[in-house]
This record gives sequence, C-alpha cells and structure tokens, in this order.
Amino acid sequence: MFLTRNEYDRGVNTFSPEGRLYQIEYSLQAVKLGSTAIGIRTNEGVVLVVEKRLTSSLLESSSIEKIVKIDEHIGCAMSGLTADSRTLVEHARVECQNHRFTYGEKIGTESVTQSVCDLALRFGEDRGKSTMSRPFGVSLLIAGVDSEGVPTMFHTDPSGTYTEYLAKAIGAGSEGAQSSLQEKYDKDMSFKEAETLALQTLKQVMEEQLSEKNVEIAAVKDGKFQFYTNEQVSLLVNELD
Amino acid sequence: MFLTRNEYDRGVNTFSPEGRLYQIEYSLQAVKLGSTAIGIRTNEGVVLVVEKRLTSSLLESSSIEKIVKIDEHIGCAMSGLTADSRTLVEHARVECQNHRFTYGEKIGTESVTQSVCDLALRFGEDRGKSTMSRPFGVSLLIAGVDSEGVPTMFHTDPSGTYTEYLAKAIGAGSEGAQSSLQEKYDKDMSFKEAETLALQTLKQVMEEQLSEKNVEIAAVKDGKFQFYTNEQVSLLVNELD
Amino acid sequence: MFLTRNEYDRGVNTFSPEGRLYQIEYSLQAVKLGSTAIGIRTNEGVVLVVEKRLTSSLLESSSIEKIVKIDEHIGCAMSGLTADSRTLVEHARVECQNHRFTYGEKIGTESVTQSVCDLALRFGEDRGKSTMSRPFGVSLLIAGVDSEGVPTMFHTDPSGTYTEYLAKAIGAGSEGAQSSLQEKYDKDMSFKEAETLALQTLKQVMEEQLSEKNVEIAAVKDGKFQFYTNEQVSLLVNELD
Amino acid sequence: MFLTRNEYDRGVNTFSPEGRLYQIEYSLQAVKLGSTAIGIRTNEGVVLVVEKRLTSSLLESSSIEKIVKIDEHIGCAMSGLTADSRTLVEHARVECQNHRFTYGEKIGTESVTQSVCDLALRFGEDRGKSTMSRPFGVSLLIAGVDSEGVPTMFHTDPSGTYTEYLAKAIGAGSEGAQSSLQEKYDKDMSFKEAETLALQTLKQVMEEQLSEKNVEIAAVKDGKFQFYTNEQVSLLVNELD
Amino acid sequence: MFLTRNEYDRGVNTFSPEGRLYQIEYSLQAVKLGSTAIGIRTNEGVVLVVEKRLTSSLLESSSIEKIVKIDEHIGCAMSGLTADSRTLVEHARVECQNHRFTYGEKIGTESVTQSVCDLALRFGEDRGKSTMSRPFGVSLLIAGVDSEGVPTMFHTDPSGTYTEYLAKAIGAGSEGAQSSLQEKYDKDMSFKEAETLALQTLKQVMEEQLSEKNVEIAAVKDGKFQFYTNEQVSLLVNELD
Amino acid sequence: MFLTRNEYDRGVNTFSPEGRLYQIEYSLQAVKLGSTAIGIRTNEGVVLVVEKRLTSSLLESSSIEKIVKIDEHIGCAMSGLTADSRTLVEHARVECQNHRFTYGEKIGTESVTQSVCDLALRFGEDRGKSTMSRPFGVSLLIAGVDSEGVPTMFHTDPSGTYTEYLAKAIGAGSEGAQSSLQEKYDKDMSFKEAETLALQTLKQVMEEQLSEKNVEIAAVKDGKFQFYTNEQVSLLVNELD
Amino acid sequence: MFLTRNEYDRGVNTFSPEGRLYQIEYSLQAVKLGSTAIGIRTNEGVVLVVEKRLTSSLLESSSIEKIVKIDEHIGCAMSGLTADSRTLVEHARVECQNHRFTYGEKIGTESVTQSVCDLALRFGEDRGKSTMSRPFGVSLLIAGVDSEGVPTMFHTDPSGTYTEYLAKAIGAGSEGAQSSLQEKYDKDMSFKEAETLALQTLKQVMEEQLSEKNVEIAAVKDGKFQFYTNEQVSLLVNELD
Repeated sequence: MFLTRNEYDRGVNTFSPEGRLYQIEYSLQAVKLGSTAIGIRTNEGVVLVVEKRLTSSLLESSSIEKIVKIDEHIGCAMSGLTADSRTLVEHARVECQNHRFTYGEKIGTESVTQSVCDLALRFGEDRGKSTMSRPFGVSLLIAGVDSEGVPTMFHTDPSGTYTEYLAKAIGAGSEGAQSSLQEKYDKDMSFKEAETLALQTLKQVMEEQLSEKNVEIAAVKDGKFQFYTNEQVSLLVNELD
Repeated sequence: MFLTRNEYDRGVNTFSPEGRLYQIEYSLQAVKLGSTAIGIRTNEGVVLVVEKRLTSSLLESSSIEKIVKIDEHIGCAMSGLTADSRTLVEHARVECQNHRFTYGEKIGTESVTQSVCDLALRFGEDRGKSTMSRPFGVSLLIAGVDSEGVPTMFHTDPSGTYTEYLAKAIGAGSEGAQSSLQEKYDKDMSFKEAETLALQTLKQVMEEQLSEKNVEIAAVKDGKFQFYTNEQVSLLVNELD
Repeated sequence: MFLTRNEYDRGVNTFSPEGRLYQIEYSLQAVKLGSTAIGIRTNEGVVLVVEKRLTSSLLESSSIEKIVKIDEHIGCAMSGLTADSRTLVEHARVECQNHRFTYGEKIGTESVTQSVCDLALRFGEDRGKSTMSRPFGVSLLIAGVDSEGVPTMFHTDPSGTYTEYLAKAIGAGSEGAQSSLQEKYDKDMSFKEAETLALQTLKQVMEEQLSEKNVEIAAVKDGKFQFYTNEQVSLLVNELD
Repeated sequence: MFLTRNEYDRGVNTFSPEGRLYQIEYSLQAVKLGSTAIGIRTNEGVVLVVEKRLTSSLLESSSIEKIVKIDEHIGCAMSGLTADSRTLVEHARVECQNHRFTYGEKIGTESVTQSVCDLALRFGEDRGKSTMSRPFGVSLLIAGVDSEGVPTMFHTDPSGTYTEYLAKAIGAGSEGAQSSLQEKYDKDMSFKEAETLALQTLKQVMEEQLSEKNVEIAAVKDGKFQFYTNEQVSLLVNELD
Repeated sequence: MFLTRNEYDRGVNTFSPEGRLYQIEYSLQAVKLGSTAIGIRTNEGVVLVVEKRLTSSLLESSSIEKIVKIDEHIGCAMSGLTADSRTLVEHARVECQNHRFTYGEKIGTESVTQSVCDLALRFGEDRGKSTMSRPFGVSLLIAGVDSEGVPTMFHTDPSGTYTEYLAKAIGAGSEGAQSSLQEKYDKDMSFKEAETLALQTLKQVMEEQLSEKNVEIAAVKDGKFQFYTNEQVSLLVNELD
Repeated sequence: MFLTRNEYDRGVNTFSPEGRLYQIEYSLQAVKLGSTAIGIRTNEGVVLVVEKRLTSSLLESSSIEKIVKIDEHIGCAMSGLTADSRTLVEHARVECQNHRFTYGEKIGTESVTQSVCDLALRFGEDRGKSTMSRPFGVSLLIAGVDSEGVPTMFHTDPSGTYTEYLAKAIGAGSEGAQSSLQEKYDKDMSFKEAETLALQTLKQVMEEQLSEKNVEIAAVKDGKFQFYTNEQVSLLVNELD
Repeated sequence: MFLTRNEYDRGVNTFSPEGRLYQIEYSLQAVKLGSTAIGIRTNEGVVLVVEKRLTSSLLESSSIEKIVKIDEHIGCAMSGLTADSRTLVEHARVECQNHRFTYGEKIGTESVTQSVCDLALRFGEDRGKSTMSRPFGVSLLIAGVDSEGVPTMFHTDPSGTYTEYLAKAIGAGSEGAQSSLQEKYDKDMSFKEAETLALQTLKQVMEEQLSEKNVEIAAVKDGKFQFYTNEQVSLLVNELD
C-alpha cells in the first residue's frame, strides 16, 4: 500500500485515487519538523510563546525570529520552514498598509489571515501571480485585536485553510501540547494565567531545558502587539520553577 | 487490472483506454472526504444544512464556514477542499454583481451555477484564464430564488457538470443520506418538514453527536438567502430529540 | 502486445508505430460511455432523440440538456462528456451570429460543423488559440436546414472529423441502434415514421424503461429548430406501446 | 531489438542511434492506414482518383472529401488523417491568393507544394509559427498546370519532403497500386488512357467493390482543376467492366 | 555498456558521463543514411557530384535537388534529411543578400559557412531565435570562389562544426569514397581530372548503376556557380565507361 | 529506505513524505565539499580566515578569491560552489549602493544578509525574477560593522536561512573546526586572540600544511573591511608555530 | 554505486546527494576529449601551443582554429567542443569593444575572463539572457597583457570557474602535460625557453607525430597578441629535433 501511495505524491497538484493531495500533506510534515509554538487567547489578549532551537552556544539567540510583528495590532508566531514564512509575512504587512491607506483604519485580523491563505493556496499557479512552485512549508498563529478591542487568533496551514482557535500549538511538540491545552484551558482564565499555561505547556514538550535564552514571548494586549523584553521573559521563566 | 489503470491517472488531462479522465474521478473522491451537506427544495424555499467537524473544543466553531452567501437571493453549501471553494465562490459573487450592474436585475440561479462550472472545467488550461492546474476538489449545492420567486437548487461537481435537484446530499455521508432523502422526500412537503428531514438525515450519517455547535443551517426563503441564528439552530436541534 | 501499445497512448499528440493517435481513440471511448442519441433525416426534416439518464428521482429531469439549440435553424444532440460540449456549442453559436452579422443571412449547417471540428482538432496546440489540452470527449449530431429549406445532419467526433448521415446513433447504445437504423431506414420515409423509428430504436438499446421523463426530442422542420413539449413527448412515447 | 527501438520513438524530435526520427516514420504509417488515392500525369493533364470508404449506407457519400480544390488551376488528393489536411490545404489556398494579389499571376504548382512542406516541417517548433505539435499524418498528391499549360504533380509526405511524380499511389493500397502503375504507365499515353489506368488500378487494390458511389475523380486539364460530375464518374466506372 | 549509454542519449542537450552529446552523434548517423555527395577542389574550381536515389521510374528525376545555388558564386551539395537543409540554405541565401546590400560586395565562402553553422549550433535554444528543437540532420559541402577568384570548399556537420577540405565525400558511401579520394587526389590535378575522379568515385560507392539520370553535377568555376546541363552530364557519364 | 528517499530528491521543489526538501539538503552537501572558512567576532571586530586549495604549484595563488569585499564596512568569506557566489555577492553589492544612494548612509549588515537570502530562496521561481533554477550551492559568512561601530557576523546557507554567530566554521572541515571554536571561544577575547584562534583552528582541519600561500585573511575592524597583506599573513602564520 | 549516481546526472541543474552537479562534471569530460592545448607565462609574455587533429590529409589544416584573437592584446587557446567556444569568444570580443568604447582604454585580461565565466555559469537559466541550455563543453586558456605590460594567463572551465596559471595544459593530453610542466617550469625562464618547453611537452603527449602542419602557435608579447607564421612554426618544430 505504501508503494501505491508513492506514485501520486510527487506531482504538486495531482489527486491520488482516494482524493488526496499528497504534496500538501507532506508540507504539513515540514511544519511538524519545526520548533513548537503556542498561542492562547483570553478576554484580555493573546499570548504567543515559541521555542528557539539553539544548536550552538556560539549562535546569537536574538537572530532567531520565530515571532514577527505584522502591524501595530497584529503579530504572528510560526513553525516550519522559516524562510518560507518571509514571503507570507511580507504579503501580510503590505495588505495591512494597503488597508490603512485605502480605508483609513486598521485591518481586521481575519482579513489579513485570509489574504495570507489566498497566497498560500495559489502556489504552483500562474507564475506571474504566485511566488512559490510548491506549498509553503509553514504554519502561522496570527494574533490580533479587532477594532472593538476584542482579541482573536487564527491558525493557517500549508493548504491555505485557516481556523480560529482559543488555544493552539503547532510544530514538533504540537500533539502533546495541544492535548495539554485542551485539558487546562479555561475561557475565563486571566491573561496572567494564560502566560503561565503557555510557558508550562512549552516546557513539557521541549527537548532542551527551557531557559530565558531559548524562548520568545509576545502578546497582543491593550490594542497593541508587543514583544516581551529579556527581563520580562526571565521573570516569567523563573516564576515557572 | 488496478496497476494498468494507474498508468493513466496522473495526467490531469489524459484519457484512459476506456475513455475515462481519472484525475477528475479522483477529485470526486476529495469531495467524499469532506463533511456532509444536505439541501432540500420545497415550494416555499430551499434549506441547506451542513456538518461542522470540530476536531478540537478549542476551535472557534463560528470560524468554520461551510455555507456562504453569494448574493442577496443566492447561497451555497459545500463539501470537499474548502480552500478550493473560495475561488469558485469569489467568481460567483463577481458574476452576480456584474449582472446586476449590466442588466439592473438579479442574476438567475442557473446562470451563476453555469459560470461556476465553466471556471471548474477550465482547470489546467491556458494559464492566463484559469486559476487552477488541477480539478477543483469541491462540490457545491447552490440554492436561490429566481425572479418569479421560485426556489431552485443546483448541484455542481469537480468535472464542471451541474444538475438541478429536489433534494441532494454531498460529502462523506452522502450515500446514506441520499437514499434516506429519496425515501422520505415529498414534493409537497412544507418548508418546516424539509428543515426537520434535512436535520434528521444529517444526524443519521454524522459520526459525532449532532448538536447546535456542529451544524450550520441556512435557507433561501421569501426571496432572500439567510443564515439561521444560533438560537434558531438550537431550537431546531432540540426539537429533533 | 497490450503492454507495448500502452507506451504510446498517454502522449496527447504522439503517433504509435502503427501510425495511430491513441489519445484520440480513447476519447472516442468517452463518447461510448455517454447516453445514446439518435438522429434521422427525412425530406421534411431531421428528428433528434436522446436518452436522459435519471440516476435519482430527486434529480430535476429538465436540467439535463442533451439537445441544444445553436441557431434558429440549427440544433444538436450530444453524447459523451457533456461539460466538454459547452465549449463547442458556445463556439458554434458565436459562428452563427458572426455569419448573420457579416453576411446578413443564416449560416449553412456544414459551415457550423466545420468550425466546430476546427476547434476540436486544435486541442493541445498553441494555448492562446485552443481552449483544451486534450481531445474533446464528445460527439455531436448537428442538424439544420440550409437556405433552400433542405434538411441535413452531420456527425462530428473527437478527432475533428465530420460526415453527413441520413441516420446516425451515438453513445452507449450506438452499435445496436445503428444496425437497427441501417435495416429500417428508408430514404422516402415520412417525418412521422422517422419519429417513431428513432424512438423505437432508442427504446431497444436503453437499459432503463423508456418513459416521457427520460427522453428528450427535438426536430429541425419547416426551417426551424424546435424542442418537443412534454405533452408532445408523452404522446409519442405512448403511441409506441 | 524492437524494445530498444521503442525508447527513441516517442520524442517528437529525437534521433535514434541509427539517425532516424521515429515519430515521422510512424506518421507515414498513419498515411498507410488511409484510403487509397492515385494520380497520373499525361501531357494533356493530371487525373486524380480516390477511394471513399463508405462504412455505412446511411453515410452521405458526398460529404467525404478526399480531393479538394486549392486554386483555379491546382487541386489535391489526400490520404491519411483527413482532419490534419485541412490546415495544410487552408495554408495552400492562402499562399495562392497571396501570390495572385502580389504578383498578378497564378502561383506555380511547385511553389504551393513547397509552402505546404515548409509548414509540415515546422511541426513542434516555435508555437507562435507552427500549428501542430506532432507531424501532420497526411500525404498529398498536388496536381496543377504551370503558366505554360504544362501539367505537373507533386507528392508530399509527413516529413515535409516533396517529389514530382508521373504516376503515384498513396494510402492503404499504395504498394500494389504503385507497382501496377510502374508496369503500365506510358509517358505518351492519352489522358483518356490515364483515366482508365487510374480507375483500374484503384479497383484492383480496393477491398470494397468499386462503384460510382465510393470513388471520387478530378482532373487538371485545359488549364483548370475540375471535379467530375456523378454522371461522368458513373460513365467511367461502367466503361471499366 | 550499450544499455548504460542509452540513458543519456535522448536528452537533446545532455552530456553523457564521458562528455558526449549523443543526440548530435545520432544526427551524424542521419547523414550517413543519405545519398552520397562528393566535392573536389582544384586550382580552377570546385566540382560537386551527388547521387540521386530514384526509388521509382515514375519519379521525375529533376525534382530531386541535392545541389542548390546559394549565391552567384556559391553553391552546396547536401546529404541527410533534405527537408532540414531548406532552413539552412534559406538562411545562407539571406546572409548573402544582406552582405551584398550592406557592403556592396560578394560575401566570402567562409562567412556563409559560419553563419550556417551558427544556426545549426543554436538548435534547441531560445525558441524565438532558433528554428529547430533538435540538431539539423544534414551535412553540406559548400563551394565558392572568394573575391580573388580562389575556389574553396567547406564541410559542415550537424554539430555546427565546419572545416575546409580539398576533397570530401559525405553520405551513405562516404567512407569508401573518402579513402578513394585520399589515394587519388592530387593538388595539381586539372579541373577535368577532378570531374572524372569525382564521378568515378561516386560510381564505385553507388548501389545503383550510375547513369545520367541518377547523378547531379555542378561546379564553381570562373567565378560562378553553375549546374551542368543534362547533355554535359550525359557526356561525362559516357566518357567514364 | 534509501531507495524510497531517492524518489523525492530530484524535484527541485518537491516535499518528501517526511516534509523534507532534498535538493536543498543536497546543496548543503555542496558546501561541505568546499574549502574551510572560519569567522570569529570579538568586541573589536570580526576576523575571517579561509583555506585556499592550491591544486598545482603553477596556479597563481592570488587568483583564488574566497573572501570578497561587499562594501566599505562589509565583507564575506565563502565555501562551496564559488561560481554560484558571484551572483549573490553582486546582488549584495548593488543593495549596498542602492541603500547609500537612497538613504545617504551605510546599509546594516543584517539588511544585506536578508537580501542575499531572499535571492537564495527564490531559486526555481518565476524566471524573470530569479537567476537560478537550482539552490545556490554556497554558504557565506557575512561580516560587517553597524552604524554604532558594533561588529556582527551572519551565516547564510543554501536554504535562504541566516543566523548570527559569534564564531562559525563552514566547508569541508567545519565540523571539527566548529567544536574547537565552541570549546575555546571566549566572548571577551581580544581581536589578537581571535586571529590566533581562527588560524589555529583552520590549521587543525586542513589536509595540506598551512602556509602563507594557502590561507587568506581579512577583518572588519575600526569600521572598515580590509584584506591582510601577504606580509601580515606571513607574520601570523609564523607566529603560530 | 554507479547505478545510484546515474539517477542524478541527467538533470542539468540537479544536485546529487553528495552535493555534486553531474552535468557540469560530465562537460569537463567533453574537454578531456578535445585536442591538447598548452599555455606558459614568462615575464616577457605568454606562449600558447595547440595540437591540430588532422583526420585526413585532404583537410585544409589552416581551417582548424584552436587559437583565436579576442582583442589586440588578448587571445585564447581552447579545447573541447569547438562550436561551443564560438559563443564565448564572440561574447568576449564584444566585451572588449564595449570597454574600449566606454572607457577609452584596453580591457584587463581578468575582466574579459570573468565575463566569459558569467556567461558560462548562466547556461540553462532565463532563456532570454542565456544562449545555452547545457553547460558549454569547452575550456579556454585566455592570455593577455595588462595596461602595465604584465602578461597573465587564465584558465576557464565549463563550471564558470577561472584561475590564473603560470603554465597550464588542457584537453586529451592534459594530465601528462601538466605534470611535465610542473616539473620543468621555472618562473625566470626566458620566453624562448617557454616556447621550447611548450612544444616539447605537446610533442610528448600527442598521438600523432608533431609537425609544422598539426600544431598552431601564438603569443602575447610586447603588448600584442600574434599568431606565428608557418615559417616561424616550421623553424621551432625543426629546432626541437
């Protein structure tokens, strides 16, 4: 059965007899090879925490960016092929600026997410419009606040599908982390509790010892996306023990 | 025999010795992997009900859209690769607006359906015109009212073929559901009876327990397409038991 | 021998050592999978009858179109991939209007037929001009009256070849039907007799029981192409028994 | 050895180790599957006779065209894929009109032949210029009179090669017919004798019984290309017996 | 070893592990299948003789052109795929006229040869510029006189390489003919002696009996390229016996 | 398992079932075949040392360039396919000049690095924009000083990923060299100590005997990128012993 | 192991698992099949000697050009596919004239070499810019004098890499010749000694007997590139014995 399946899995846009698109399923595996990222939404805001894989002590930790800002009020965590995400993030930023310029207001989080997914879906099509000849091997957790100050978080995957989540883990440790979140998440938890739950969950699934060096934290809160300073990260990591 | 067949099934536009186009047949399988959707037409209107697969309790149910509005008087339910449907729906919406702008009247349901099928058929052709290099892996149930207020429902499939149905089920549970509809559908049933039949049929074929969370309902009635509110859905689900 | 033949049959435009183009031969098989259509020409006019495959009683019979009007005086019956025929029919209609506009007269039936075949032949060529990357999997029976009121009927096949026929059957039951026509056709039969012969022949080769629901009839007569009303079809079917 | 040869024969423009282009050789086979056509040149003119394969008595014999007029003074008989020949003939006709328009005189037979062969040779090249992605599977016998009234006949084949012949047979029965012509042709035979020789030779190699229905005759004589009327054909066929 | 070699020989522009381009080597074989052509240069001029393969006595010998004129003072003999040579010869003729028009003088023989080879080398490249997607399967013997009246002869092959020769044979009989030339050629032989040597050598390697019908002769002499008349050919052939 | 893996590794942009892009992983091997290069950053500046492979004593050592200047304040060492690096370096230089011209200031080291990686990532895409149809088989160590005079060093690889390093080795000897650097590097070491550590580490991993001929040294120090003179290299090599 | 390697060696731009580009390595073999060329640099100038393979005594030796002039002060010897070198040499000549025209001075030897290598590297890329869809199968020894009159010699290979050499042999006999040069070359040898060493080395590795007919000599000396006359070559060859 494995051999039969193989025959359909190299064509970027070829259906298998069971109606599956293998190249997209394989690109989902690329995400599973990435470092773990976790996002939790509370009524106050969304917290994003990601693992940084420091393969060498000579590597400058700050040069690994797994969380990026998209607009004043929107940011995202990522897992998978980091280089692939640059195209998506760049596209999202342009959409935000276009919206601001055209309508004089901040773009909605779902609109940005949809435009990222439209780009992801177009891989392999009409070369003039697309920028990729294979699926983008990256998943994003896009967090933002909408105009009424309500925080939301969307998950996108390489197939161009997005869904809204209250709490979501992606990357190598996502299975363990997600079941942990499912168990402990409470709709009415405070933002502070969410911070702790996210870090604790990440700690559980990381192979390395969690430290202030190998974790990155950011939040959408009070209408703004902001990175945590090294001091804030240190404090949170120390509180955990 | 299976091996021989395989040799023709990867070319997007290659006939097998029996005159079949396997990639299109395989894309029909992609629809069979999707969540079930059911549409029933009565003299008063069309009701559409779809299953929402909630793979996680942390997933925001409202972000899964399996029914979309196309115009004031037309909407559709879908099953298969949801991301693929976006291109078709977007195309349908533009057709509706173009018609309104050009002729000063609402477009007919069959006209919209045909334009969606024309797009579906063009996959793999002349890249400047088409937007897909493989068949669209999605089926739609397009429901609308025509200018005289008569409701109609069309079924489209990945081959670009459409047919009008009185009652039709698509997706994973479509076989069981369709034979159930065939048995119980009555041309003169009231809209209320159709609502109940649609929900009951969906309940039978769903793996999960039917609840107000994992079902979406919409209708074309009194000349308008409208989504049911959460309360309306709850009421109907409760009535069922 | 079968294996050797296979090696030449996937290239759309590749000759086999025996000088055959297999993809075109396979597309002829696609026609053989279609529902049966029969056309008979008499001195008074041409009658076209086609089988409608009603796979479900919930399917709206009137939405299956196997006979279409091309111009006031020309129409055609089809068998094979119905979706493919739309491109050909659309092309034929435009040719008719262009001719009317340019020359102020009705186009000849053979001219329309030739323009359809030219399009069919061009598949796989120069993408800017063609609209198909594989042969069109459909055969047409194009019936019309020429300016002197003389009826004619042409048969087109996926290879872009056309020939004029007095009586011709295409589709799944074509072999049995054609030998039946060969036996019973008479050049001087009345139009009424032709109607009966066409329906009788179709009845013989259909798997389903022939009824007024699963047959479509049209004629080119008295200088005009016209569909039979449901009543007319009913009457003819009843007369048959 | 057969298997080894196969490996070079699917590439449209690939040389085999022996320096052969198999796709062109295979397209010559396509001609060998066609109906037989014979041309004979005398000092008075050229006669062209072709077999019409009437696969059904319901087929309108006159709609099979195996001889076509190119210009007032040039015509051709064909064998092989008839649909392919339309592109070549259309090209030849345009060349003739261009020549007339530019130089105010009739084009020479060899010039037309060369332009047809140039088109045949270009298959698979520069899509903007060519109209075919495989060799044209058709051979032509192009007959004409030059400005001094001298008749000539050229034979073209799918490789884009042409040669002048006194008498030439192409198609399914060409081998037997050609050796018969070789034996009986006489440079000084009268046009009448050539007519008889051509018909007799065709009769020998046809599987069907030769009749006025399944043969088509045309001639270039007295500076003009002309089809024989049904009466003329009947007369000749009857004289034969 | 034969099997291994095969794997590199179908890509038009693929090196084998030994650094060979097989498609070009195979196209050299296409030349070896052609009819024999011989050229000999003396101080007075160059003589070109070619075999004409008359496969049928009904073939008009004069329509086989294996020697063509390029300009007043340049001509060439060819062997291989005759249809391929037309593109090269046409290109050479245009170069000659361009040179005349631009510089007001006759082009040099080497310049024409180089431009032919540049075209031959470009096969398979940038479709807008090249006219072939495979190597040209033809070799030429280009003979001309330079402005000082000195005769020269160049040999071109499908790889786009050219070399100047005193005496050279190409085509089916080239191996035997070349060793014969090598033995008997004398730099100071008269033009008359060269004519005889060329014909004698051709006679040796031809399968058919040499006659005035199946040989073509031309020469560059006294500053001009000229074909021999039938009478001149007859005379020479008769002298030989 | 090796055989299965092979099936996914030739498509430039094809995911394997495990979510890996083999062509990019193989291009990383191309870097491992290159000569070793080492970079060390101290507070005073960055030192770059590279091995020159002198395959012959007749080779002019100075013509092997493994370190190049990008701008006044930025330079880079490379390992892998040297010819590939030219495109990247040329791109980097243009970016630097554009920045200077547009903003009137020196570009940041990370900005240059990112633009090089964007180009590397685009291989195989939209031919008009990219200059490569395969991954660039080269890694760079880009060293520069930022506007505040702070030295930084980035490592880029063929996948278009970059990371900042305090000390990094690339090429054939990179594994041994990196673990040596990891052990001996000290954040507060002087520039002089870094020079010695870099040369010592290179000496350990080189197959050839280290000499002033087969090593190249450059540094970013005091706001400027500069090559060491032969005398400076000699001195350092001699000090080592 | 041989079989595994084969699977990566036909894609023009495909990395093997070891990070190698086989098509480029195979094109290096094409150079090894070429005739031997040797270049030696002294303080006075560079001497280039090449073998001419005279496969026939009827071949005009002077028409084989293995050394060509690029500009007044630059020339090159070549080995491999001679026809390929024409594109490179033509490109080099244009670069020289552009430089002269733009800057009013002679171009440097390294600049010309680099522009040739840039072209060689671009094979297979963006068809509008490149002129080759495979690597150029030719190596060059480019010799020139720089503005200060200092002679230099560069070696280019099919991968687009160039290096400066004091003495270098390429082609079929390059291995033996290079080790001979390595042994006998002396930086302070006179130009006269270099001439003798080059010829002696070539004589050793040639299969044919060295004579004034099958060797070509040129030099860059006293600021100029010049071919040796037949007399000069004769003299040198005779001195050798």
